[in-house]
Amino acid sequence: MKPYAFGIDIGGTTVKCGFFKNDGTFVEKWEIPTRTENAGGMILPDIADAILGKLREHGVGLGDVEGVGIGVPGPVLDDGVVDGCVNLGWGVFNVAEKLSGLLDGVPVKAANDANVAALGEQWRGGGKGFKNVVMVTLGTGVGGGIIVGGKILGGGHGAAGEIGHMQMRKNETAVCGCGKKGCLEQYASATGIVRMSKLALANEKKETSLRRLTEITSKDIFDAAKTGDAVALNLVDTLGEMLGSALAHITAVVDPDVIVVGGGVSKAGQILLDAIEKYYRPAAFHACRDTDFKLAVLGNDAGMYGAVRLVLD
Amino acid sequence: MKPYAFGIDIGGTTVKCGFFKNDGTFVEKWEIPTRTENAGGMILPDIADAILGKLREHGVGLGDVEGVGIGVPGPVLDDGVVDGCVNLGWGVFNVAEKLSGLLDGVPVKAANDANVAALGEQWRGGGKGFKNVVMVTLGTGVGGGIIVGGKILGGGHGAAGEIGHMQMRKNETAVCGCGKKGCLEQYASATGIVRMSKLALANEKKETSLRRLTEITSKDIFDAAKTGDAVALNLVDTLGEMLGSALAHITAVVDPDVIVVGGGVSKAGQILLDAIEKYYRPAAFHACRDTDFKLAVLGNDAGMYGAVRLVLD
Repeated sequence: MKPYAFGIDIGGTTVKCGFFKNDGTFVEKWEIPTRTENAGGMILPDIADAILGKLREHGVGLGDVEGVGIGVPGPVLDDGVVDGCVNLGWGVFNVAEKLSGLLDGVPVKAANDANVAALGEQWRGGGKGFKNVVMVTLGTGVGGGIIVGGKILGGGHGAAGEIGHMQMRKNETAVCGCGKKGCLEQYASATGIVRMSKLALANEKKETSLRRLTEITSKDIFDAAKTGDAVALNLVDTLGEMLGSALAHITAVVDPDVIVVGGGVSKAGQILLDAIEKYYRPAAFHACRDTDFKLAVLGNDAGMYGAVRLVLD
Repeated sequence: MKPYAFGIDIGGTTVKCGFFKNDGTFVEKWEIPTRTENAGGMILPDIADAILGKLREHGVGLGDVEGVGIGVPGPVLDDGVVDGCVNLGWGVFNVAEKLSGLLDGVPVKAANDANVAALGEQWRGGGKGFKNVVMVTLGTGVGGGIIVGGKILGGGHGAAGEIGHMQMRKNETAVCGCGKKGCLEQYASATGIVRMSKLALANEKKETSLRRLTEITSKDIFDAAKTGDAVALNLVDTLGEMLGSALAHITAVVDPDVIVVGGGVSKAGQILLDAIEKYYRPAAFHACRDTDFKLAVLGNDAGMYGAVRLVLD
């Protein structure tokens, strides 16, 4: 194996770039802006320039690079074809082939960003030591990634692990961004729990410290819950109910060794896991009832780790 | 590759034995009884005898056998260890290793019976031509198998695809065989729809042809539904709602190319698929909304096909 590799995580505003040794440790990490103008046509050339510049800086030639892995915020088929990325302005094309062409044919592999984050956590993070991992990312939305035997489960349309749109409540009246009603991310994301808090404050008379805030964040809700605030505890409980029930479905399908919970909301820590497990364990298939929950540990680096793992496997 | 192989499907009352050419066509198939006495200690010796006898009959030596695949009615780990089979009286042991020992070291691979049936349908049945298949088997219970990239997804505890115990109704009062309430198989199996029919006949005043039967089967219910019987149509609709909703969850997790529906209940045909799709499509994640449904075609042979595929891959 050649001595170096890159793990690139493309986001809607910045591209996280990781220059790695082939043992999976960082040489250096940095960010460049994601230029989405002109249908995102500059994104891959910008990445290629960044990689070539970094190599020059370190006096390393392209011939010493094992490959480049990239995580993309959209569905990616197994052959590297991106099936449209709204956030980047991208249509349908082979992102791996295109970037490889800009790098003198260095091997490039691409996968969905939530899936590479899951692979990163399985390889070097909360799921380390386990081959079969379900990762849930609780951020603005709810993302997911399924790792089976140490590999990403991509799916027939690049949509495996899209658990944020599992329909958990049929009697919901609010509409999800996807057009359906009652999706998991309407309850279990940062946005979701804040949305629920507004409804609770409007409909309930109970005193709560949340009423004193002008703008409520998911962190405020978990902080209030930790002090025993009943309204906040109830919101955390609903999040736990929705996510715990969804995870019981998910483990009945893929039966992982471990479940890793990441994303901004996961900074709440044990109180979050407790709320999820309260509903997960009684609903889970008996063989999966004792499956462990772990917090993600790599934070924003998970995508770079997972991306580089695509080419260091 | 050697010219012959065996695909063995162990059931609670009979063992289905398939003697195959290495192109996956049958030389012959036959059955032997499953002797569950003495903690199932005779089952593997009986299978070894059956295989050796069949080889003698055809004048073929063990040296011409590529391998033996077996499907087992219980959880099987990737290394061939069976994690207990209540129906067979088996505890925990390596079934692949044990049978191989009885056959002079011929390679043996083992997997769960629902999973090998799914593999059979993916290889030679309703899912032929697709690499990523979700199969649901609607029989006495609801079984499932997930095929990813042409391989069985076994899971960390051999429990992947155990979709019959996804909890679909939280307000159910009837208890499932597994001890939980509201499991998919309480509605979507042959037993489940008959159970629901009894409740409907007891609680509803509506006239229905089902009232004239002394013992109702799931076939009776589908036959009545096909003639327009409102009570029967309602039962089929509930089955479709439960299974369609569950499949929307399942495809959000593994995103198959195609969904194959098999088992005795699937003989109802298009009316069953229509009932499932009515609830599946609006609940599914958009990338999976148009995923095709197919009926299984191999019937009771699916397990033998899938078992032999384990060693002919």
